[in-house]
Amino acid sequence: MTSPPINFRVLASDGQARSGVLQTRRGAIETPVFMPVGTAGSVKGIRFEQLERDDLDARIILANTYHLWLRPGIETIRACGGLHQFIGWERALLTDSGGFQVWSLGELRRISEEGTEFRSHIDGSRQFLSPEVSMDVQAALGSDIVMVFDECAPGQAPAAEARQSMELTVRWAKRSRERFDVLQLEGMDTGRKPAPGLSGAQALFGIVQGASHLDLRRESLARKIEIGFDGYAIGGLSVGEEKSVMWNVVGEIAPLMPTDRPRYLMGVGTPEDLLEGVALGVDMFDCVLPTRNGRNGQAFTSFGKVNIKNAHWTTDTRPLDEDCQCSVCRRHSRGYLRHLYMSGEMLAGILLTHHNLAFFLDTMRRVRQAIRSGKFTQFRQEFTDKVNSGAE
Amino acid sequence: MTSPPINFRVLASDGQARSGVLQTRRGAIETPVFMPVGTAGSVKGIRFEQLERDDLDARIILANTYHLWLRPGIETIRACGGLHQFIGWERALLTDSGGFQVWSLGELRRISEEGTEFRSHIDGSRQFLSPEVSMDVQAALGSDIVMVFDECAPGQAPAAEARQSMELTVRWAKRSRERFDVLQLEGMDTGRKPAPGLSGAQALFGIVQGASHLDLRRESLARKIEIGFDGYAIGGLSVGEEKSVMWNVVGEIAPLMPTDRPRYLMGVGTPEDLLEGVALGVDMFDCVLPTRNGRNGQAFTSFGKVNIKNAHWTTDTRPLDEDCQCSVCRRHSRGYLRHLYMSGEMLAGILLTHHNLAFFLDTMRRVRQAIRSGKFTQFRQEFTDKVNSGAE
Repeated sequence: MTSPPINFRVLASDGQARSGVLQTRRGAIETPVFMPVGTAGSVKGIRFEQLERDDLDARIILANTYHLWLRPGIETIRACGGLHQFIGWERALLTDSGGFQVWSLGELRRISEEGTEFRSHIDGSRQFLSPEVSMDVQAALGSDIVMVFDECAPGQAPAAEARQSMELTVRWAKRSRERFDVLQLEGMDTGRKPAPGLSGAQALFGIVQGASHLDLRRESLARKIEIGFDGYAIGGLSVGEEKSVMWNVVGEIAPLMPTDRPRYLMGVGTPEDLLEGVALGVDMFDCVLPTRNGRNGQAFTSFGKVNIKNAHWTTDTRPLDEDCQCSVCRRHSRGYLRHLYMSGEMLAGILLTHHNLAFFLDTMRRVRQAIRSGKFTQFRQEFTDKVNSGAE
Repeated sequence: MTSPPINFRVLASDGQARSGVLQTRRGAIETPVFMPVGTAGSVKGIRFEQLERDDLDARIILANTYHLWLRPGIETIRACGGLHQFIGWERALLTDSGGFQVWSLGELRRISEEGTEFRSHIDGSRQFLSPEVSMDVQAALGSDIVMVFDECAPGQAPAAEARQSMELTVRWAKRSRERFDVLQLEGMDTGRKPAPGLSGAQALFGIVQGASHLDLRRESLARKIEIGFDGYAIGGLSVGEEKSVMWNVVGEIAPLMPTDRPRYLMGVGTPEDLLEGVALGVDMFDCVLPTRNGRNGQAFTSFGKVNIKNAHWTTDTRPLDEDCQCSVCRRHSRGYLRHLYMSGEMLAGILLTHHNLAFFLDTMRRVRQAIRSGKFTQFRQEFTDKVNSGAE
């Protein structure tokens, strides 16, 4: 039997929450894990050195196939030795398939059995993305975890539309799997890397769709398992539907997902969302909130959200979060951060992004610890109480 | 005899170029030195941790009185314990007087014997800056080196106008000195700090004006020396006049400046300018070029300027400057930096700013070494030849 591209072991569980280790060809990732989003090959506003330092220690980041495919383009990235080499990041990379981004273009795209035709958001040029193209692009990027190309039906889509979409997604998943396997055989993966006990190839994750319809979701999952993937994701959530709809789907589907494969809830969420997802058995998360909100002057802290623009902070010499050990909280005050933001200084976004990522990543570290010591429920209660207290 | 606020010793000279140590209450600064500009209490696009690391090791930065006075305002900075504490920077700080900034407002200001009335560039409110106000503000900031409040006549000003301006500047320098001394006695300096062999007080630098008129420049210098300052600056240059005019003034004035006090050429310049200034006997420089140009996609390298937007760099896997040991050049390629810039990623400005500052600061390190080993002329020739070669 050949070695697998990744190896996932659950080391402890507490209720449905679980903590384990995801071994990739580019290092071990403790789960549950939060993956910072590096859309265009850069996690906005932060240097890789910082992501690697102890107060963040991000083991895996996400990059967007759609964005990198359009700019700088695959020829450039191949010429520079693949995405890891191009951007100078040696730890693990996950790439999405471009399906969600293209779907987000709305009026600008047209979906057929073959794939999706759309106009580039950069120059309006006509482009075509299909399962085969997405797999080709992700092989050229050489990411360590590849996502299948899917179509995303909105959470509130009616049953007939959602079924059609789910069926298409299954056919696309099969085509993704087939093309992916050929590409691996042909050595088209630029990120190939020997690693003990692993094949050195890319891993491929399937995506469960089906909008808010639990029967469709269950069927989608069963048919993805039938195809067979290295991990499974829940997609098409956190796209405008009510939160209760999202948790209804996750609560139903996560426990049905293979226990020996990582479970990834795409595009989620706030710190409280991460804890809810973990409680339902999810292992992996990604979200733009810590970076995007940081640039817009919002900090996530142990006592809730802080709007740094608030005049209340003008002469406040305390760190953003007195419980936080990140390099920003060790050095800078709320008053200074507010001043930077009000003065339009880049450093405001840089420092708030750093703190927010530190808060997300540290929260996940504490989550893992709590699960391993069987105290996840207690930890979550205390965490939520403090966030909701609004105490400063 | 009481201890001085700073102590300056020349350790080596080579022609008129000199290298020494400027001891301040916040550490020793080897000269010649380049001071990064931190206008609003932030060197744009870079964290203090980076400025302190070995590849940059900036020992002193500049902050702008005018900007900080208007925003966040002196009450805020006093309430937060002075500028060092407010921004979280423990090394030396020099503040300009606000004179140049107000002068730059052009139509928005009106100058009288008493001071300068102007409208804030932020909210249009009417404001008044005088020698006394500037000293009050700089004491509240607690900077380690304070600049006198001066009026700046443009390099091409006719003799009569330049004389009037020079005379006013002398009267303002006296008033600055008087108010400054009172403020030190009254303990209004928020940055006071005991240091071996030093008084712990702020230092005050005079500024030589007189536009392009050498007789006025000489008189201005003589009258500033008569008042007596801890260091002397040449102001009113690099404001639109021909470079030959600037070097004519510096070449005349620098050798006449007291040899036992630091000489500071304000607002200058490119790496080649720094070398020219050093050759004429200048010890201190500040300029926005490395940070501003970095944000605009221009890098300074050992082989000249690099426009990172150039399509030529698209798949170039070499670092910006193969001779550079900075953390950006050790990790990232020209191709990646170009991609970041073209994609509008903040990281482009962050990384180019870092490299540019590293290049300026490292150049000055090499200048000091060359002077100490009596090889400054040779170093300068080789440096200039390489910059002009345009070799990649």
